[in-house]
Amino acid sequence: MKLLRVGTEGSERPALLDADGALRDLSGVVPDIDGALLADDAALERVRAAADAGDLPLLDATGLRIGPPLGRIGKIVCIGLNYHDHARETGAEPPSEPVMFMKAPDTVVGPNDTVLVPRASRKTDWEVELAVVIGRTARYLESVEDGLAHVAGYAVAHDVSEREFQIERGGTWDKGKNCETFNPLGPWLVTADEVADPQDLALKLWVNGELKQDGTTAEQIFPVGEVVRYLSQFMTLYPGDVINTGTPAGVALGAPEPKPFLRAGDVVELEIEGLGRQRQEFKDA
Amino acid sequence: MKLLRVGTEGSERPALLDADGALRDLSGVVPDIDGALLADDAALERVRAAADAGDLPLLDATGLRIGPPLGRIGKIVCIGLNYHDHARETGAEPPSEPVMFMKAPDTVVGPNDTVLVPRASRKTDWEVELAVVIGRTARYLESVEDGLAHVAGYAVAHDVSEREFQIERGGTWDKGKNCETFNPLGPWLVTADEVADPQDLALKLWVNGELKQDGTTAEQIFPVGEVVRYLSQFMTLYPGDVINTGTPAGVALGAPEPKPFLRAGDVVELEIEGLGRQRQEFKDA
Repeated sequence: MKLLRVGTEGSERPALLDADGALRDLSGVVPDIDGALLADDAALERVRAAADAGDLPLLDATGLRIGPPLGRIGKIVCIGLNYHDHARETGAEPPSEPVMFMKAPDTVVGPNDTVLVPRASRKTDWEVELAVVIGRTARYLESVEDGLAHVAGYAVAHDVSEREFQIERGGTWDKGKNCETFNPLGPWLVTADEVADPQDLALKLWVNGELKQDGTTAEQIFPVGEVVRYLSQFMTLYPGDVINTGTPAGVALGAPEPKPFLRAGDVVELEIEGLGRQRQEFKDA
Repeated sequence: MKLLRVGTEGSERPALLDADGALRDLSGVVPDIDGALLADDAALERVRAAADAGDLPLLDATGLRIGPPLGRIGKIVCIGLNYHDHARETGAEPPSEPVMFMKAPDTVVGPNDTVLVPRASRKTDWEVELAVVIGRTARYLESVEDGLAHVAGYAVAHDVSEREFQIERGGTWDKGKNCETFNPLGPWLVTADEVADPQDLALKLWVNGELKQDGTTAEQIFPVGEVVRYLSQFMTLYPGDVINTGTPAGVALGAPEPKPFLRAGDVVELEIEGLGRQRQEFKDA
């Protein structure tokens, strides 16, 4: 299923993109798309049955904003340097174990919402990423297979990053990752049963129409199941938590000087095979 | 006012510690102690008026668990190396600007709840910290005074840390800061009007009855108002967000070998002048 949330910011209602590409209203079936729903097999089954029966009300998509496809996100854990090609372009050694950092859930916006360039920013950068949404509480998992079994679904994430804040301002990456609007998510949460192989997805990103990132999750150093297993040794993952699993090569940081960092007026588009497409206009904060 | 939340985990009700040290039930006045309350001057005034009138129902404290004094925490931003004496003991240069990292809100437990030593941990450490609770949305603030004006109140935080995960496992401190139960908070949220000077508070921490940390917030390199102002240049702070403002000298990491890291059976007690006292028993995860 392709689950989404539509409407004005903070007042989104749950919806479903049906097999014909039409929007269907889910608000009569479930209150929201969130961790509580993803952990509730019976509720998910009700959604599936209603979708299969074809009796969900149609929604008029005209002018309808798409919000992030997940409400009440608990935490966002991000994996750094998780693609062989991206590690190479930044001059870093491939890490021997996953590098993690965090984004606050309040950085999340809809897939086509405006992204704000921070006031003092000189190095705002793009990163297309496969987002993993947790569906079952994950704690000290023992295998990659068990890691995958705790995934409810997948979505496109844009892990917007300010490289000067991240790298040159005193110690931890979080400082360049948590600016407001820095985590567009969506358009859909695609349930795991519809993603045949999360390690075989094409990712692409364009800036002002020019293709910048053109990668595949096959390049991930630590695949999804291993990332979930690994993180569960250090923290408990709960339903509704999100993992941004890293970005392939092609970011501004990896380009020759002068590096083409983002500024107001730029338009970024990104997509992952089967998970949909985002488009953001950048403006000054 | 001293605001708190009492009851079983996940079902806490709002309460107030009155001037006589008695617990008063606030559940008839406000639904919870959270960011929405702290941002709502009228609701806070109702609480204050009810407290002053002395007609809030008494609560029997016998056997009553104290939960974290704040529900629905949005994010927890932590400042590292923010005390002159702690920077010295770890051998680090005092930072030229605040070092930040993050803890997920799901690490928060009550002030006297059990803390779990992670399964693979060999270096679990303690850190008494002054927690700052945000009361108004803070974005690109211009002055230290304005930073302080966005603070709703203060609490004791225990920033439990696993040093091997934090320092020796690949890059960012977050990995050693987000283990389950790693952020005891409380007992109370003390409103800012009752804290005459946040830069003149004694902090103490004992392990198995032995005094380990004995500091003062006067040693903070970046005071509370500056921390809020600084962070607001990189991220938006919202009502109900928490800032752990760093720890004074005396942690296990700063001790001579063999360093006295925590293990199951250890008891840690900590307190900050005017903000109350915590006591945690450590157990194996």
